[in-house]
Amino acid sequence: MVGLPARGKSLIAQKVVRYLHWLSIPAKTFNVGQYRRTETPTPSAEFFDTSNTEGERLRRAAAEAAINDMCKWFREGRGLIAIFDATNSVKSRRRWIQDRCQAEGIDTLFVESKCDDESIIMSNILEVKTTSPDYVGQDPEVAAQDFRDRIRNYEKVYQTLDEDEADLTYVKLIDVGKHVIINGIKDYLQSRVVYYLMNLHIKPRSIWLSRHGESRYNLEGKLGGDADISDRGEMYARALPGLVKQSVGDGRQLTVWTSTLKRTIQTARFLSFEKLEWKALDELDSGVCDGLTYAEVEERYPEDFVARDEDKYNYRYLGGESYRDVVIRLEPIIMELERSENILIVTHQAILRCIYAYFMNVPQERSPWMDIPLHTLIKLTPKAYSTLEEQFKADIPAVSTFREKGSSAKHQHSSGSSPSVTASNGSGAH
Amino acid sequence: MVGLPARGKSLIAQKVVRYLHWLSIPAKTFNVGQYRRTETPTPSAEFFDTSNTEGERLRRAAAEAAINDMCKWFREGRGLIAIFDATNSVKSRRRWIQDRCQAEGIDTLFVESKCDDESIIMSNILEVKTTSPDYVGQDPEVAAQDFRDRIRNYEKVYQTLDEDEADLTYVKLIDVGKHVIINGIKDYLQSRVVYYLMNLHIKPRSIWLSRHGESRYNLEGKLGGDADISDRGEMYARALPGLVKQSVGDGRQLTVWTSTLKRTIQTARFLSFEKLEWKALDELDSGVCDGLTYAEVEERYPEDFVARDEDKYNYRYLGGESYRDVVIRLEPIIMELERSENILIVTHQAILRCIYAYFMNVPQERSPWMDIPLHTLIKLTPKAYSTLEEQFKADIPAVSTFREKGSSAKHQHSSGSSPSVTASNGSGAH
Repeated sequence: MVGLPARGKSLIAQKVVRYLHWLSIPAKTFNVGQYRRTETPTPSAEFFDTSNTEGERLRRAAAEAAINDMCKWFREGRGLIAIFDATNSVKSRRRWIQDRCQAEGIDTLFVESKCDDESIIMSNILEVKTTSPDYVGQDPEVAAQDFRDRIRNYEKVYQTLDEDEADLTYVKLIDVGKHVIINGIKDYLQSRVVYYLMNLHIKPRSIWLSRHGESRYNLEGKLGGDADISDRGEMYARALPGLVKQSVGDGRQLTVWTSTLKRTIQTARFLSFEKLEWKALDELDSGVCDGLTYAEVEERYPEDFVARDEDKYNYRYLGGESYRDVVIRLEPIIMELERSENILIVTHQAILRCIYAYFMNVPQERSPWMDIPLHTLIKLTPKAYSTLEEQFKADIPAVSTFREKGSSAKHQHSSGSSPSVTASNGSGAH
Repeated sequence: MVGLPARGKSLIAQKVVRYLHWLSIPAKTFNVGQYRRTETPTPSAEFFDTSNTEGERLRRAAAEAAINDMCKWFREGRGLIAIFDATNSVKSRRRWIQDRCQAEGIDTLFVESKCDDESIIMSNILEVKTTSPDYVGQDPEVAAQDFRDRIRNYEKVYQTLDEDEADLTYVKLIDVGKHVIINGIKDYLQSRVVYYLMNLHIKPRSIWLSRHGESRYNLEGKLGGDADISDRGEMYARALPGLVKQSVGDGRQLTVWTSTLKRTIQTARFLSFEKLEWKALDELDSGVCDGLTYAEVEERYPEDFVARDEDKYNYRYLGGESYRDVVIRLEPIIMELERSENILIVTHQAILRCIYAYFMNVPQERSPWMDIPLHTLIKLTPKAYSTLEEQFKADIPAVSTFREKGSSAKHQHSSGSSPSVTASNGSGAH
């Protein structure tokens, strides 16, 4: 990373790591500030003055320690992409990083966040003064002033990436993607990361997620298929516009995305917004098990039934898909979600698990077992370092489609009256 | 488009149109040079001197005529993306385009190709002097000199896109993607086009394509499945390294991509190159028809059988895919192929048809009916305005899997001896 303090470097680093983990690419951030804090936990602005030789020495030592750990991490084969998160604000520092990496056979991609938009900088300063470990226990106003002074010390010496560094691979993000400069991209992974960075925006927005209403297959405990929604599913479809209104507020326009399967299209049909059908949102393909109940799967494919329990993320149905396969086909959806504002997605359990896992940073051992209840609208609101979740439950009963890991394959009939009988933690069917 | 002559503008325009057509996005190029030629078929360099007022007037008139036709094309709802292909080399001209488009409610994306790499410019000049309609019947050396003079006339007044035009959405491609500057991208379609442009390269390369060797399902005339290759398929697998050597030459390293299905992995297993399995290369999913013969499909789903014949590109098998669906899931493959050099793909008939259609610009009414014979290695070499195709046939018989449009569903047994019994024009199974 390259950039002055309060330019969203750590935020970008964190989003990229989350995205890479979601794609099963092992990645890790090495934050120089954290290393520096072991010696200097709460430095004042003058620590960052370049004429402060002791400060310089300590900051240099922290960078050394971080890069050493990073190189070790690569040598031990523990990951594919490391993010070296620091200001790296002068050319000599960047050259030093480049040389160290080259000596280790590590390719570099410098990502500069340059931002002159006062409102973005101010909101970052606000974030830092209240949450940074550098200012723990200090008066927020004093912290904000000290942080502004720290920025000024960096500004004195700051050198942006430019034609002197034409031999480096870099991307400059100016005012969060408004203007982007890309230099010397060499391979596919770099090009994917750059495309992801290009698509980031920081306008406030939410994403709404819902499973389709209960389907006739849900009632029978069958997998897959293209069944109609049940009578209770129909009730949910009719209730959905009200739930949306309750959580969105009046007047705001959403775009509704469904899969190409009947149960999602039927569920969305009373929403008076623009609608788009995506094949990529179709349910996980259960191949030869399509149309069977879990009990039938257990009977006909007992070994597969056990194998799936053991590694549900990687298990691919014969002639069908694994969760890993679904994540790959969902990538364009995630990319478009990052670009967009105000999308409501009506889709299927396994698909929602994957989308939810991306935003909520759920590890892949857990994501296939998450419970995403029927007849519930989920609202996700991405914040700087986390995503806020709200659930809006329709008071309409539905069968539970969850099956706990290692449990036998009994179909669970609905209790028929409780307002939200689907909830259960950490497990679910498909 | 923006850029001096001989900077590959028309080549880029043509590639983008081909890519968009492949994605079923109607697009069209409006080339100002073509409009200018109706009045001035073979202008000399001085026609392009800005002090030549009559030349200026005629060139202006050609731009007016082209933009009028373009606006009419949009108004008539005939397409989504028009490419206004001309040098558009000064700011006032670009502002005029922007204003004209804004008045019509058309979003603009300026794509500048800036190139100071002499070898690229020279090869473009070479192309122009031998193929441009402006120099028909002229001595190539005289043509080349005149063309250089024309470029010089443009250079005198050329203004690159810069911060004065920060309100425009633009991408500057410098030295064919080595350095890229992106400004003010607003929507998903723009972001997709920009990503495609970023990934283009013009290093000479070829792409090798092969279907898997004959499978046991091929022998039985069955669709889909995950069968092993037949004895003759095995012979093809053993012959493939020799075919590759014959067409690639010694020493060049390829990367081999297969699907996740056994018949492609088995076919590729004697090739001593790095291999990658892609789920996205799996055969078109025939849903409920998986494992059936065409005769069985005709018998069990007679209406589907007819519907598929009528619009094979859009027909989606119940619970399966259409060709249109396949194209969407192949997009990352095409993007990676554009970035890469020297890839050999071993995959399935429908998938090869889609990849082939992209490179060879086959319209979607025709692509699902193309014949891609078994036991044949296809080499595609992209050139400036076309793609060169070579076929290397293994002398190993195989069943024909083709079924002509409107024909009944008879399974065709192999003749068993002819060196390439699969060839047939314009039709094929799946």
